[in-house]
Amino acid sequence: MEASFDTEESFDDPSCLSPQSPGSTSPARRHNKEKEIKETKTTINGVTFPLPMTMPEQELLKPSEWSYCDYFWADRKDPQGGACIPGFEVLLQKQLKGKQMQKEMAEFIRERIKIEEEYAKNLSKLSQSPLAAQEEGTLGDAWAQLKKSLADEAEVHLKFSSKLQCEVEKPLLTFRGDNFKKDMKKYDHHIADLRKQLLTRYAAVEKARKALADRQKDLEVKTQQLEIKLSNKTEEDIKKARRKSTQAGDDLMRCVDLYNQNQSKWFEEMVTTSLELERLEVERVEMIQQHLRQYTTLRHETDMFNQSTLEPVDQLLQSVDPAKDRELWVQEHKTGEFRPVDLDI
Amino acid sequence: MEASFDTEESFDDPSCLSPQSPGSTSPARRHNKEKEIKETKTTINGVTFPLPMTMPEQELLKPSEWSYCDYFWADRKDPQGGACIPGFEVLLQKQLKGKQMQKEMAEFIRERIKIEEEYAKNLSKLSQSPLAAQEEGTLGDAWAQLKKSLADEAEVHLKFSSKLQCEVEKPLLTFRGDNFKKDMKKYDHHIADLRKQLLTRYAAVEKARKALADRQKDLEVKTQQLEIKLSNKTEEDIKKARRKSTQAGDDLMRCVDLYNQNQSKWFEEMVTTSLELERLEVERVEMIQQHLRQYTTLRHETDMFNQSTLEPVDQLLQSVDPAKDRELWVQEHKTGEFRPVDLDI
Repeated sequence: MEASFDTEESFDDPSCLSPQSPGSTSPARRHNKEKEIKETKTTINGVTFPLPMTMPEQELLKPSEWSYCDYFWADRKDPQGGACIPGFEVLLQKQLKGKQMQKEMAEFIRERIKIEEEYAKNLSKLSQSPLAAQEEGTLGDAWAQLKKSLADEAEVHLKFSSKLQCEVEKPLLTFRGDNFKKDMKKYDHHIADLRKQLLTRYAAVEKARKALADRQKDLEVKTQQLEIKLSNKTEEDIKKARRKSTQAGDDLMRCVDLYNQNQSKWFEEMVTTSLELERLEVERVEMIQQHLRQYTTLRHETDMFNQSTLEPVDQLLQSVDPAKDRELWVQEHKTGEFRPVDLDI
Repeated sequence: MEASFDTEESFDDPSCLSPQSPGSTSPARRHNKEKEIKETKTTINGVTFPLPMTMPEQELLKPSEWSYCDYFWADRKDPQGGACIPGFEVLLQKQLKGKQMQKEMAEFIRERIKIEEEYAKNLSKLSQSPLAAQEEGTLGDAWAQLKKSLADEAEVHLKFSSKLQCEVEKPLLTFRGDNFKKDMKKYDHHIADLRKQLLTRYAAVEKARKALADRQKDLEVKTQQLEIKLSNKTEEDIKKARRKSTQAGDDLMRCVDLYNQNQSKWFEEMVTTSLELERLEVERVEMIQQHLRQYTTLRHETDMFNQSTLEPVDQLLQSVDPAKDRELWVQEHKTGEFRPVDLDI
């Protein structure tokens, strides 16, 4: 993490110990004014960001990749509630939504399976219909095959639904089972804990800052009082005040250090974890693409198999022969070939 | 109709007037025996056929064609009832059954249409499902198209069912409407009437035969009586008896003529009408063949159109790009690019 220094002087420089009075343009006041003008950072919800106008050159960690690790540092204000959602939460929600999408796609495939099974059942039943079963000969054969072809079609659609189930629905359902949600929860808690710590550490920094300001003011007042001999404060008191001021400065430095360490830790976890989530999302999209392609492959197959159920029907229809059928029927049903002759007297 | 003569002598030949007595082997008796041995025809249900053993060469009217007009001359005994069904009835029943087959085939197609409509309805409904509608980017587009393809498939199946209805079901139903049954009834009645007449005429022949036999016997008896001077019958009585005998012979000839004319008429109608039924049956078989081929053509088409609904899906699945999707999503949902910086004292 890059360091950024502002122009504030160190606490130990006695030249900053100058009296402050309203309206004066003492060096100290001018110095404070300059400090306000040169404010370059801001801490929001415990996280410290550079201010835009004084933004140092921050190159993206992964330029041109629209990587998660580059775009989710700040919290997002919820427009309605006013509550803040950390950028990481947004990434997590995307993951959970992705899992939900998987599930819904599997459900859709399940519905398709049901439709195919219903269709197959109906075709199969109709195939067994006795309608026109009494048709005989080559026409009867063609008709019987036409009826049978419905059973063959039913078979094709059942096979389709069966493959849909194991090659599309099941993978979509079982990809990343229950462990996924647990993993997401772990990431969630881990990152949230680091943020909580950061807030705590920042509060400590603020407290230390205030304590330092109090100590400094006390020292200032006591020094002024000594100069105008306002009280019977001794050098001893001023040394004590100065010691307390120095201690407060040390405390502040320690607090800021701890804060920065914490923030660094959070930063690293953010980069690592968001890149993991990014990888998981790529994996999810590719998995879904693969299985939806499997869906279309199965559909293509099905239409082709369906076509082939017509071949025997086409052949038999080609062979329909009214003369042949007449021969078969006449042979079976003829009543007599002898033609009548005149009666004789 | 070919004439066939047996070896019976004419009635006017006085040499057949010979006494008949049991046991004698008079020329007359020998003549009668010869007559029995040379019986070459038989009349069944009013129709006269040659007997098989003395069958003259009867060539088929339409050789090698298994034509209706060659095979339905005799009546068929109903094995269960014992009643007789004329050969023509068998042909008529085949026609009516053919019409029934048409109707049943149309019904089958109707059932297929219902199945297709149900399938289309289900696909269409599922196509509008909001499942995974929140998927975005290139993956979302591919998914949306996949869902839409179900609506396209539904459209294909609706078109199929619609064409089935007008190109297959309707023609099968309406081919030979109600007039057909009326025509069949007309043929039925016409031929049946000719048969009834034939029976009547044959009964008349039998009656005339008996009358002649009676007259001949009477003449014979009277002649014998004259020879042995048994009675006081005069020549006058014999002349009367002979005249009556001659008249009975003439009556018989007339009855036989009328019978033969009737039979000829029936024969002609049988040939004409059975050939018409034969033609109608060829037409029916060809019509059905044509429309069942239309069915398979529509099925082939449907499978092809169904395949084409996948093209846009395949294309969009090809274009699925996790990096692109990340870019789109990050652009929309990013919370902040500024990375955190150290807090300063």
